[in-house]
Amino acid sequence: MDKPVILVTNDDGVNAPGLIRLIEIVRSIGKVSVVAPEHSMSGTGHAITARNPLRLRLIDKEDGYEKYACNGTPVDCMKLGEQIVLRLKPDLLVSGINHGSNAAINILYSGTMAAALEGTIGEVPSIGFSLSDYSMNADFSACEKYIRLIIDKVLKNGLPQDVGLNVNIPAVNSDEIKGIKVCRQAHSRWIEKYDERKDPASRDYYWLTGVFELGDNEEDTDEWALRNKYVSVVPVHIDLTAHHAISKIKKWNMNV
Amino acid sequence: MDKPVILVTNDDGVNAPGLIRLIEIVRSIGKVSVVAPEHSMSGTGHAITARNPLRLRLIDKEDGYEKYACNGTPVDCMKLGEQIVLRLKPDLLVSGINHGSNAAINILYSGTMAAALEGTIGEVPSIGFSLSDYSMNADFSACEKYIRLIIDKVLKNGLPQDVGLNVNIPAVNSDEIKGIKVCRQAHSRWIEKYDERKDPASRDYYWLTGVFELGDNEEDTDEWALRNKYVSVVPVHIDLTAHHAISKIKKWNMNV
Repeated sequence: MDKPVILVTNDDGVNAPGLIRLIEIVRSIGKVSVVAPEHSMSGTGHAITARNPLRLRLIDKEDGYEKYACNGTPVDCMKLGEQIVLRLKPDLLVSGINHGSNAAINILYSGTMAAALEGTIGEVPSIGFSLSDYSMNADFSACEKYIRLIIDKVLKNGLPQDVGLNVNIPAVNSDEIKGIKVCRQAHSRWIEKYDERKDPASRDYYWLTGVFELGDNEEDTDEWALRNKYVSVVPVHIDLTAHHAISKIKKWNMNV
Repeated sequence: MDKPVILVTNDDGVNAPGLIRLIEIVRSIGKVSVVAPEHSMSGTGHAITARNPLRLRLIDKEDGYEKYACNGTPVDCMKLGEQIVLRLKPDLLVSGINHGSNAAINILYSGTMAAALEGTIGEVPSIGFSLSDYSMNADFSACEKYIRLIIDKVLKNGLPQDVGLNVNIPAVNSDEIKGIKVCRQAHSRWIEKYDERKDPASRDYYWLTGVFELGDNEEDTDEWALRNKYVSVVPVHIDLTAHHAISKIKKWNMNV
């Protein structure tokens, strides 16, 4: 079999250590094209760039490997990677390794996971990888074994239609990780608290800060897995319908 | 009963006609605080602003009504509206009226719906309203009756836990609308096609364009409802877990 064509992106930007580590891993598996944001795009969610021109900057190109920086969002990177750089559908999209957890509600804000969801929309088997350590000096050495295993399984088995994977790795030593748990997104939220300040001209401004609130300690959740030193694997999809609520809302009788 | 406290936002920006129409409607229902982006933030998804200071600009304030512009995203607007402007949890969040459909896969890219989902995360009953017409001169006159009805139902019945509403209104004359359908998100995607150009210095750049592909003609979908001149109401939630895929992925046997 030919080597798989692998598209790589992230949201921490083209120079992030987590991206560089992910590139090292996938270069031993397939032909690799990297399209990642010029700068950090953490917290950009599923944003796309429709009102500004997009550009690609070639950083590196050799046999079986190419790397571009893009002035757009992670979702733009995924789309441009497929449409302009590869001009074909890749066999796999990997996004990350994110500096910081994308478990629980974090998936909604994450550019890394938005790129993986965009791949899923486009019927590319897609995986987002994150390490639960926000530091740019995070130690990614525990990640490799699990990333290789999960990529191998996805390349062999494929993924169910319209399903991608949200993989989070706990920030502990490699020998402390107990294994992999396939689980669901924990119910949770960020409680925002704005840091209210005044600028030198006495005008108000606000910094977003917040506290993570976990309202769900069940053993089948990604947060439970991570807090108990498991790698969490959540199958995710792009149908936001709350199917269980349809019959309830229908009872409102909104016939006019 | 006291008048309900209603927070209003959108993604087309503080001057968009759709927002102005929505404000008119809700001012007759409750006490209204508007926090909307300074400029169009269409397609910003669930982006948040954590690396730049946020500011609010007061536009209008009178008894029972206030309006601010914010330099952040729609999700920032929702958060700042609750935390800084109101300093309490509103009884209702409404977002829109969006210029253009947020049915089907569009919900993922939409800043308007992201604000409504952010309200849902924060346990505020939240509704996003969109009209299937992207024009800034869109005719919103058919919307009012349905917006009033749906807001009335939500204020009376509440919403199921962790559920918001994605309401889309077809761009037809008021008397052509057949009614309201409670439905699910249609399976669909945008097929991107970049418009490839060269700037005056012969450097490549790309404009995002695309074609909407509907892979789902079932009568229980929002797209079917809109194409058949119904208002679509999709209950939406923020759990992206593909629950049906968990058992399948577990069979991969990833014990290490």
